[in-house]
Amino acid sequence: MAGQTLEIIYDVPRVEEKLILKSAKMRGLSVRLTNVRQQHLLFDKPSVDISLVRCISMYNAAHSAAVREGVGVRAINSSEAIIYSGNKILTVSRLKAAGLPTPRTAVGLDDEAAAKALENVGLPAVDKPPIGSWGRLVALIKDELTFKTVLEHRRMISSTIMKTHLIQEYIDIPNRDVRTVVLGDEVLGAIYRYRGDGDWRTNVARGGVPVTAFLNDELREISIKTARAVGGDLVSVDIFETVDGSYLVNEVNGVPEFKGLMQATGVDVPEKIADYILGQLRR
Amino acid sequence: MAGQTLEIIYDVPRVEEKLILKSAKMRGLSVRLTNVRQQHLLFDKPSVDISLVRCISMYNAAHSAAVREGVGVRAINSSEAIIYSGNKILTVSRLKAAGLPTPRTAVGLDDEAAAKALENVGLPAVDKPPIGSWGRLVALIKDELTFKTVLEHRRMISSTIMKTHLIQEYIDIPNRDVRTVVLGDEVLGAIYRYRGDGDWRTNVARGGVPVTAFLNDELREISIKTARAVGGDLVSVDIFETVDGSYLVNEVNGVPEFKGLMQATGVDVPEKIADYILGQLRR
Amino acid sequence: MAGQTLEIIYDVPRVEEKLILKSAKMRGLSVRLTNVRQQHLLFDKPSVDISLVRCISMYNAAHSAAVREGVGVRAINSSEAIIYSGNKILTVSRLKAAGLPTPRTAVGLDDEAAAKALENVGLPAVDKPPIGSWGRLVALIKDELTFKTVLEHRRMISSTIMKTHLIQEYIDIPNRDVRTVVLGDEVLGAIYRYRGDGDWRTNVARGGVPVTAFLNDELREISIKTARAVGGDLVSVDIFETVDGSYLVNEVNGVPEFKGLMQATGVDVPEKIADYILGQLRR
Amino acid sequence: MAGQTLEIIYDVPRVEEKLILKSAKMRGLSVRLTNVRQQHLLFDKPSVDISLVRCISMYNAAHSAAVREGVGVRAINSSEAIIYSGNKILTVSRLKAAGLPTPRTAVGLDDEAAAKALENVGLPAVDKPPIGSWGRLVALIKDELTFKTVLEHRRMISSTIMKTHLIQEYIDIPNRDVRTVVLGDEVLGAIYRYRGDGDWRTNVARGGVPVTAFLNDELREISIKTARAVGGDLVSVDIFETVDGSYLVNEVNGVPEFKGLMQATGVDVPEKIADYILGQLRR
Repeated sequence: MAGQTLEIIYDVPRVEEKLILKSAKMRGLSVRLTNVRQQHLLFDKPSVDISLVRCISMYNAAHSAAVREGVGVRAINSSEAIIYSGNKILTVSRLKAAGLPTPRTAVGLDDEAAAKALENVGLPAVDKPPIGSWGRLVALIKDELTFKTVLEHRRMISSTIMKTHLIQEYIDIPNRDVRTVVLGDEVLGAIYRYRGDGDWRTNVARGGVPVTAFLNDELREISIKTARAVGGDLVSVDIFETVDGSYLVNEVNGVPEFKGLMQATGVDVPEKIADYILGQLRR
Repeated sequence: MAGQTLEIIYDVPRVEEKLILKSAKMRGLSVRLTNVRQQHLLFDKPSVDISLVRCISMYNAAHSAAVREGVGVRAINSSEAIIYSGNKILTVSRLKAAGLPTPRTAVGLDDEAAAKALENVGLPAVDKPPIGSWGRLVALIKDELTFKTVLEHRRMISSTIMKTHLIQEYIDIPNRDVRTVVLGDEVLGAIYRYRGDGDWRTNVARGGVPVTAFLNDELREISIKTARAVGGDLVSVDIFETVDGSYLVNEVNGVPEFKGLMQATGVDVPEKIADYILGQLRR
Repeated sequence: MAGQTLEIIYDVPRVEEKLILKSAKMRGLSVRLTNVRQQHLLFDKPSVDISLVRCISMYNAAHSAAVREGVGVRAINSSEAIIYSGNKILTVSRLKAAGLPTPRTAVGLDDEAAAKALENVGLPAVDKPPIGSWGRLVALIKDELTFKTVLEHRRMISSTIMKTHLIQEYIDIPNRDVRTVVLGDEVLGAIYRYRGDGDWRTNVARGGVPVTAFLNDELREISIKTARAVGGDLVSVDIFETVDGSYLVNEVNGVPEFKGLMQATGVDVPEKIADYILGQLRR
Repeated sequence: MAGQTLEIIYDVPRVEEKLILKSAKMRGLSVRLTNVRQQHLLFDKPSVDISLVRCISMYNAAHSAAVREGVGVRAINSSEAIIYSGNKILTVSRLKAAGLPTPRTAVGLDDEAAAKALENVGLPAVDKPPIGSWGRLVALIKDELTFKTVLEHRRMISSTIMKTHLIQEYIDIPNRDVRTVVLGDEVLGAIYRYRGDGDWRTNVARGGVPVTAFLNDELREISIKTARAVGGDLVSVDIFETVDGSYLVNEVNGVPEFKGLMQATGVDVPEKIADYILGQLRR
């Protein structure tokens, strides 16, 4: 596969992209870096053989993948996987269709419907907009007053999609959730994310602390099925372990960060990605 | 199929939905009306056999379809068809992948990239955000100054997706475009939309005037292929007829209005839809 | 003053404007109605002698008044009174400067500063954006979690001014507040606004119920001083009566609604306004 | 005045603030720096004798000044001067009331009114939102199409004030405008700002180039009158010199940048400011 070209598409470069670049070059791949904030995208065949989409913005990622797909270049992940992972309603749809366990979920597409959704789920609940990373605007609804406050504020955000409420039962997890990273048919590793001080969310961006976790067969199976449900080659899966020991799939990320997992588990994710891409090019 | 239930999902009821309701009832279908602004959606199997999604808001349509799909109810259109029709970058991606002709297109995911995209396409050009109906925010870029004005304004709209620019060559059509409506394997009809006074866009919402058009084989073939490219059961297709007589697919609508086509052509679209749904239920 | 012309400037016509129109005509005034959503405003002297500004939008009100002032037409209220009443930080500034009692207030112009402002005021607190009517986005902060939720949501509203937090101690009023209406040197009346079901705010728009209140000398004095502090001819004043019987001025409205006060007290506010305007024209 | 304390209030520190700090200290003043993004503001008397407001955000500047004024501390500029300079409709109101020459101006508070305002002013025109620095969203309207594009985009910006259109005749200035800086009764200097490449606006932030200009008596008088009209101690004034040699006041800045003027003219503005503050403290 020497002589073949991998394109890494990004908007904000992170350490992960640099590590992937290095691993890809060590395997003899040419690498082309495309910063979509500076470079435009054309529906002409670029001189690349496969594109790895690493944009932080979900929309940038989906749009980049779609342009490449339009001219027959395989994008990892596909635009469809990015979109169905990146929108929490679409994710739950795919998880449910695949028979995967999730927290109880109701959807309100406007204020009145959202109030009924909350009534159905009961208090406490979690209210999420369909789109958003790092737990942004994910609100814990402990009482009616908080819910009113959230409804009013969401109404003022000009983006239509922010007026949509995904309401889920609040799962009383023991101070942590589980995150796995899946690549193709392999689960690369699992970590616990412990809540940091001062926030109920476990997102590392909110102070959550990553610690290696034992990857048992059930977690492995759920993770693989989840990746297939959204059609992703490379995804991370956020899983709740409930008090009775069962698992619920919470969210999926179609452009996953994996620095925390690398540090906690020692797994060399960039090498795995480079090998996976070589495998895809060989097919 | 008597005894089976069709669900019509909507947010703002229009005359189209009332006509479909009537036609469906006349064929012996039970009909359940779901107003998603008032009713919440659950990932529990509702007592319906198929769902027709008629929400005006693209997000409402996609989310409604996805919730139904999550519990195994077929949605027309599917969430995927709604999303790939509703986002103009995703649409072009699918059209290009299917080998369909489109106006020359470049994508800029940020200001600098958008400027390069415009440079590639040349002036005059059309600058569209990926999402939006009735030609909203679709700007004709005649010169650099107008482009700067558009860039600055888009930056101020808080929705991220509005900062993305789909730049297309301006096609100098003779005062009208062609719209076809496709249902399954059939093209139901074709109309010209003539520009109204005071706007360069042909959208009926902008004063465009619908007139019946001759549905030749080429239009028919392009329309069917377009519907398949986005995976839609029921879509409208906007087509430019260029000066040299060739066609370019401009846009697709995954929740199409068809009142104008009914009036201009006399085709009873609601009856066709009701028959199609019966056919789907029989399979 | 017969032959003189009163201009009523409005954006959304309400019953109040119709009543004022009627009372003014009965006193022999010509009345010109200016709907600023349809009519443009010029810095040319219009053929009116005084302008009563009744726009619901605070910005529309301030801008209308300013255009008239620019060509020497007296506006009631003045643009300055409208602005200093319409912005809650500016209001508190004027109230404090005039020695009037207010709830303890701290201002945070960004997230970090807002957190310190909340710490200074303590829990529970009320978090308001500087601008907004009918209690919109006024949030009761009972705990840190609610505050985080409010901060995150405000950050997403694209208007800069919404990122500013006016944090006030929560005054545990006995289920109602007091509203007075001031016109020139006269307090026209006072009402209690009782909380409606399902909201902690007393705004009539939130279900608050108006009931006539006894207008004692202290309320009268505070109301007059408040109107003078913001420079208003016609304002409503919202006052808290604390547990120990003392008063705190909460908010001022520079384009006051007075229908509730008319109904509860029987005071004919439109006649009073018409008389006041005649008096101003005579000066 | 030794022992007296000057507070410099800012949100984003610039070189101007550092120079003022240095000049103030050299004159024996204590200086307290208040970063309003980090520090909250209380309506308690701070241990400062005068506050110089240097926030880049107009709202931050006005709110900071107002809090200080509320407890009897003189703010330079006053909240009123900041507000009336910072809002272009309010500025024109004050300029007109003071008999100062301005470009022909019409105000549209909604789309329909804005269309009439444009009709009144005629093409080409300049369309500005009332608030905004560095020429942001100031659009040159050469034809109806551009105007429609601007109207549609402004409607999508969630801030109400952005839906307001200040429409002014386009003044065909010879590639430059004049900026003066006024402090108290003195005009500190004048510069030309030449248009940079690629933008019709002269804002230095848009590539405008500052060059020293001769400060004649007429410019001096207009500048002083303008500062008085908005009630400002320290303002910059943007002036158009028309083809026939007469002047029109375009805009005023109530928190002026003066680095460009210092470089072009050699005037030590920070020293002037420090002296002025000492003078104010002595009064």
